[in-house]
Amino acid sequence: MAMALRFLRPLRGVRAFAAQPIKCKAAVARGVNDLRVEEVTVAPPGPREVRLKVHSNALCHTDIYTLSGQDPEGLFPSILGHEAGTEVESVGEGVVGDCIFCFPPRGKRTNLCPKIRGTQGSGVMPDGTSRFTDSSGAEIKHFMGCSTFSEYTVVADISCAKVSDTAPLDVCSLLGCGVSTGLGAAWNTLNVEGGSSVAVFGLGAVGLSVIQGAAMRGAARIFAVDTNPKKFVMAKELGATDCVNPKDYDKPIQQVLVGMTKWGVDYTFDCTGNTEVMRAALESAHRGWGESCVIGVAAAGKEISTRPFQLVTGRKWTGTAFGGFKGRSEVPPLIDAYESGRLKLDHYITHRFKGVEGNLQAVEALHSGECLRAVVTY
Amino acid sequence: MAMALRFLRPLRGVRAFAAQPIKCKAAVARGVNDLRVEEVTVAPPGPREVRLKVHSNALCHTDIYTLSGQDPEGLFPSILGHEAGTEVESVGEGVVGDCIFCFPPRGKRTNLCPKIRGTQGSGVMPDGTSRFTDSSGAEIKHFMGCSTFSEYTVVADISCAKVSDTAPLDVCSLLGCGVSTGLGAAWNTLNVEGGSSVAVFGLGAVGLSVIQGAAMRGAARIFAVDTNPKKFVMAKELGATDCVNPKDYDKPIQQVLVGMTKWGVDYTFDCTGNTEVMRAALESAHRGWGESCVIGVAAAGKEISTRPFQLVTGRKWTGTAFGGFKGRSEVPPLIDAYESGRLKLDHYITHRFKGVEGNLQAVEALHSGECLRAVVTY
Repeated sequence: MAMALRFLRPLRGVRAFAAQPIKCKAAVARGVNDLRVEEVTVAPPGPREVRLKVHSNALCHTDIYTLSGQDPEGLFPSILGHEAGTEVESVGEGVVGDCIFCFPPRGKRTNLCPKIRGTQGSGVMPDGTSRFTDSSGAEIKHFMGCSTFSEYTVVADISCAKVSDTAPLDVCSLLGCGVSTGLGAAWNTLNVEGGSSVAVFGLGAVGLSVIQGAAMRGAARIFAVDTNPKKFVMAKELGATDCVNPKDYDKPIQQVLVGMTKWGVDYTFDCTGNTEVMRAALESAHRGWGESCVIGVAAAGKEISTRPFQLVTGRKWTGTAFGGFKGRSEVPPLIDAYESGRLKLDHYITHRFKGVEGNLQAVEALHSGECLRAVVTY
Repeated sequence: MAMALRFLRPLRGVRAFAAQPIKCKAAVARGVNDLRVEEVTVAPPGPREVRLKVHSNALCHTDIYTLSGQDPEGLFPSILGHEAGTEVESVGEGVVGDCIFCFPPRGKRTNLCPKIRGTQGSGVMPDGTSRFTDSSGAEIKHFMGCSTFSEYTVVADISCAKVSDTAPLDVCSLLGCGVSTGLGAAWNTLNVEGGSSVAVFGLGAVGLSVIQGAAMRGAARIFAVDTNPKKFVMAKELGATDCVNPKDYDKPIQQVLVGMTKWGVDYTFDCTGNTEVMRAALESAHRGWGESCVIGVAAAGKEISTRPFQLVTGRKWTGTAFGGFKGRSEVPPLIDAYESGRLKLDHYITHRFKGVEGNLQAVEALHSGECLRAVVTY
């Protein structure tokens, strides 16, 4: 359920219309955990579509989740990848430089665009067809409206966000999903304020970016919770004040955190996808006003549960998709903040690989548990 | 978990200190569904306590819930009753006319006062003892810090709210729990705004007061949901625009409501205490920004569940106790609104009985399903 979002430099000097098919390399997901580098053909962009040359792709756990076969919406064969920095190669008819879909006041309240969600989930473009074929001419599905495990891809114009001419496209790729999601969960969804307390469950790239976002807001106490104590080093660097390993305690982690704070934590975030941890995060929230945000993607069929008393006594349970950011208008300013030094992002790139083949190495790296983001540059 | 709250006229002319025990009649809950009118002795108020002459008591489902033995905190023998209009008979040492417990900014965020919650739940006064004894001298427990099924009772000073000299105490009793809870759920907890859509599940006094509160805020569409179509008459009078009986449909009610609204309802309220209905209310909420409020008290051990996807796609799940009102400061203005004609309340009194014995008749009436509030005047 991450947002479809690509970053691209402005459209100046782009070859429009009458574009020809392009043959290029892509890492094709042929089946469960079966990722193969193949030559594919990328059709020209249709009306209100854009063909992109992918510069950098950052691997996200959601790609691995779908590759592993757990994603009930997952389709094979398909081209995965949904965090990327790209350049526009050509555009179809009717593409506009900017497009505002969601108007206030309702638009202010959500970043979920229903316009292309249906076709995105079905692995096709808004017109119901695919732009990818393999060497035998058979169709390959799109993924999340992005498919950036390919040297070239086609996306809907409203799935693109223009960034500055000088933006480094490898860093841009980080903001395509996970890191934006964590920052936005703290800034937009729960709107953490200075002096408050925060608990973050799960210290991957998303959890660490929640910590970073909360620290930038001036949270007074930030609990970083993970069963892998190696994760605590960077959590502390980013602003965590208390690192808590649930394995060090005999009682449930929610009781530990409530014990450390008397009445619980003002804002809590699940960044694990584990429904038991989601419950623990809610039940760690402060009586009377604590809010808990579900960020992680749960396995198919899993449900969250709690006693209604937890809500009646003032807790709020909510979730976020892409941190509440509207990609086209609200993420380019994050790139500006990076370029001006106000937002640190380089630390999320722990691994770098080259070429479309690098996506296979990136999958290995992310499985290792030592990796925050593996960026592959084509 | 309703708030402990009684209404009393100002303290002028009250006999203070050196008060003697009072013998009076009370309806004592001796065991499960065993309510007996007995003579009891009510001790003088201790420091920071107030002895009240109860004028009117409105029966709430929570009293019946505890009487039925389902309440895990329920204790016997005890004196139930927690919605009442009273007069001060005498006060203990150190009682202040006004007492502000919760200071901003934290105080602004919740109405849950932890100061006496612990002893309230244990059926005793803040000093750990009871003020009630039966004719054999044996202790009788307090209930919710109120125990208004008695001609006289003793409560903590911070459990009292002063109302105007002219306030009718029978109407005041309505605002002690249920009706305030419904109005406050709409006004404070979910803060329903003009033009929005609302769905209310369960059309007892609480559900009807949510409808009334939402209509007073100018909600454009108000769905009233109940399996008893007799309830729809008053729901419409109070502002419901669409009455929906889940029995009229083959599919789950959340699918019915989403179908009637395309993306769901802006604000939904469970007023049933049924955890399956709580889930339906959440899942009826609007994708992207819908909020759902749990008001009903669930049976012991029952849990609420949903797929986390419901939260990740922008819904918020929360609850309310006493509608978020701070009883001492925020309920007296509701009485003022009633006296000036801005707030209609008389329609909630569907049954009236006389004397402490009337509480037994009130229990029968509330079980009948035809009753909103049965007010007993001593």
